Amino acid sequence: MSRRPHVLIVGGGFGGFAAAKRLRNADVSVTLVDRTNHHLFQPLLYQVATGGLSPANIAAPLRNLLRSQKNVTVLQDEITGVDPTSSLAWSNSEHYAYDYAIFAAGGVSSYFGKPEWAAIAPGLKTLTDAREIRRRVLGALEVAELQGLSDPPTFVVVGGGPTGVETAGAIAELTRHTLVGEFRRTDPSKSRILLVEAADRLLTSYPESLSAAAAERLAEMGVELRLGSMVSELQNGEATLTSNGRSEKIATASIVWAAGIAGSPLAGELAKAAGIAPERDQRVAINADLTLTGYDNVFAIGDMVRFAGRDGAALPGVAPVAIQQGKHAAYNVLRSLRGKQRKPFQYRNYGAMSVIGRGAAVADIGPAKLTGYPAWFAWLFVHLLQLVGHQNRALVAMQWGWNYFTKNRSARLTSGDAMLFPAGSTEASEPHASMIAP
Amino acid sequence: MSRRPHVLIVGGGFGGFAAAKRLRNADVSVTLVDRTNHHLFQPLLYQVATGGLSPANIAAPLRNLLRSQKNVTVLQDEITGVDPTSSLAWSNSEHYAYDYAIFAAGGVSSYFGKPEWAAIAPGLKTLTDAREIRRRVLGALEVAELQGLSDPPTFVVVGGGPTGVETAGAIAELTRHTLVGEFRRTDPSKSRILLVEAADRLLTSYPESLSAAAAERLAEMGVELRLGSMVSELQNGEATLTSNGRSEKIATASIVWAAGIAGSPLAGELAKAAGIAPERDQRVAINADLTLTGYDNVFAIGDMVRFAGRDGAALPGVAPVAIQQGKHAAYNVLRSLRGKQRKPFQYRNYGAMSVIGRGAAVADIGPAKLTGYPAWFAWLFVHLLQLVGHQNRALVAMQWGWNYFTKNRSARLTSGDAMLFPAGSTEASEPHASMIAP
Repeated sequence: MSRRPHVLIVGGGFGGFAAAKRLRNADVSVTLVDRTNHHLFQPLLYQVATGGLSPANIAAPLRNLLRSQKNVTVLQDEITGVDPTSSLAWSNSEHYAYDYAIFAAGGVSSYFGKPEWAAIAPGLKTLTDAREIRRRVLGALEVAELQGLSDPPTFVVVGGGPTGVETAGAIAELTRHTLVGEFRRTDPSKSRILLVEAADRLLTSYPESLSAAAAERLAEMGVELRLGSMVSELQNGEATLTSNGRSEKIATASIVWAAGIAGSPLAGELAKAAGIAPERDQRVAINADLTLTGYDNVFAIGDMVRFAGRDGAALPGVAPVAIQQGKHAAYNVLRSLRGKQRKPFQYRNYGAMSVIGRGAAVADIGPAKLTGYPAWFAWLFVHLLQLVGHQNRALVAMQWGWNYFTKNRSARLTSGDAMLFPAGSTEASEPHASMIAP
Repeated sequence: MSRRPHVLIVGGGFGGFAAAKRLRNADVSVTLVDRTNHHLFQPLLYQVATGGLSPANIAAPLRNLLRSQKNVTVLQDEITGVDPTSSLAWSNSEHYAYDYAIFAAGGVSSYFGKPEWAAIAPGLKTLTDAREIRRRVLGALEVAELQGLSDPPTFVVVGGGPTGVETAGAIAELTRHTLVGEFRRTDPSKSRILLVEAADRLLTSYPESLSAAAAERLAEMGVELRLGSMVSELQNGEATLTSNGRSEKIATASIVWAAGIAGSPLAGELAKAAGIAPERDQRVAINADLTLTGYDNVFAIGDMVRFAGRDGAALPGVAPVAIQQGKHAAYNVLRSLRGKQRKPFQYRNYGAMSVIGRGAAVADIGPAKLTGYPAWFAWLFVHLLQLVGHQNRALVAMQWGWNYFTKNRSARLTSGDAMLFPAGSTEASEPHASMIAP
């Protein structure tokens, strides 16, 4: 008897995890490799970054989620190279031979050719990112309180897409509501929050009426919108914004980068193998059946690929796209194994929604354009439904209920001893001495 | 009108936090300085280290806990020096003048003159420690699975006091119950767990019958006890144990240090100021009224001091001692302000309890010596009652209930990309190449 076909899945995010589950009853041997030990519900990462939820609320160990699926082996490793000609992928320590491979390695924050900005303005892709942003946002307020600064800190969020809108809204709630009464020498509610977007409106993938509703609500919450503005320079403690050729320097202790996602470096490897030029955003173009040109047994999905929808525009980098592509890639693997022809992928768009704050969201669901509480309840419902693991769902629901009624955010811990001076703060390099004696 | 007296409290642990609350209605101005932003319920830190609870379950932001106490200013800073003669303390950036000071800076893991062991065998004092131990324990199992090792890892816990017993028991539950069925190529339940104690019994502060019960239960859970053994050498990946002059080398990927606590470095500064030799464990001896000899306005409490109980033996470094001393120091400050004589501190011992595992604990409460389920329920009840903050209590109860019935531990996330090879693992320095193709 011949051995079972080996399917290698690289990445345990929405796409890779969905692919693994789709192969549940298949007579194949699956190896799922992820560089972390958990599946992460990225849409709620901004809540971890702003102290509303704990990491364990939005992430679950991959091997726990897949424990009963006996044909899957979960390995924690980072795939760094692939040679599709010899059906081989590798990490720094291991080699992985495969019969079929599904690459779902996701994306990385993209700094438009300025990789040195990464240390100054962390993106929001991993739990480590979220913890670092939490440390910087809360650390900036701690420094202001410690030094008795009359000017509370300025926060800059770069990028007016869903992640930027959600993060700016969450920082507004944190500083305007949650922290009220907790500081004695500085006033967090007077901190400035700038949301910078190059286009002339927020949430460009939404209808204009919803962009306008989001902008209005954020302005009410005290977020300063800088539409039609670009970040032209970032340094520790300072962001330079450029609009219509005019530049403005903003002193800031905390910058969050939500302006761009590029494909994982593996996408470049795949593009090279297929002999196609990588896209500007480092994504790899794939065939209609999700295979890599020239390699019937290699699939790539999610944030690392560029895939045109029916209207010709690239599908957005959101969870539903990755999940549907993951299921479809697994389905095509099964069809290939049965000697059937692979089918093209078609995205079903069930809508999009972004939350802005307590009782405020926008939702674009077919003909329905919702704002305010209706959109917010829809958002809550959908996100709780989608959260992986029953316990997480119950705990998050409880945490949200608590936060809603008390305006509290209990997951506001920063760890370590060196958190006081965030790397992006000028105070770090200029210790000053003041006398504290009320 | 004269200004209000300024009370400086250094440390927001059990002692400092209790002192601040005791001053709630006093006409004083309190500055509470802690190097972290949270009050930590240290007795449950081992649960965070072994994935049973999230950091936010056992810690709460200090400024949130004290928000309604308007006479307290919370500052995140690390006090590094003190000059009691001029009533001044300082950090790297600030100076703190005080009328009264209560030093409650706690303890640090003590390596018996081998500070280089700290990187090899982290202690369990902070959330950062707990996350690092979690990363190493789970990382060791990930490495074994990745490399398909026939020998699962060996864990070494040094110190048979309550923290060591609880940690060893929790690792046993993690590997014997929680992770069952999650690994395909290695078997965590076959991992070795060594608990090393220099004395001839565990839990030396408990009656002998309870020590014996704890030892029996741990052995049933698969923990190898090494009583009368000392750690004579630690290196990355290897611990040398010495017993009766004979040495044994143990290959291990993860070592937890629970063998000793010394006073915070500030204790040495205080001892120097008072002209007294510091104790062997870097604690400072204080007067019966908790003041530092020669300085009526300087109090020191908790893990950084040595204080003899009624039987002449030093009080143990446990939460009830710190809490009672914190309240008493604040009480003596108030008496001094009213021109009254300070009173000596007397410790009321309500008992001690340590948990071993599911339904297993030991409790020494006056005449009652409990083991098994009665002790475990007593432990659960007391620890839930003591947890600060109503939400934490409810969430922890829910998490525990879930863990108990499902044997699950959902807070098993390790973060970052570089977690695969723990610093203490030899695999890190010797990448090997194996072919993964089932």
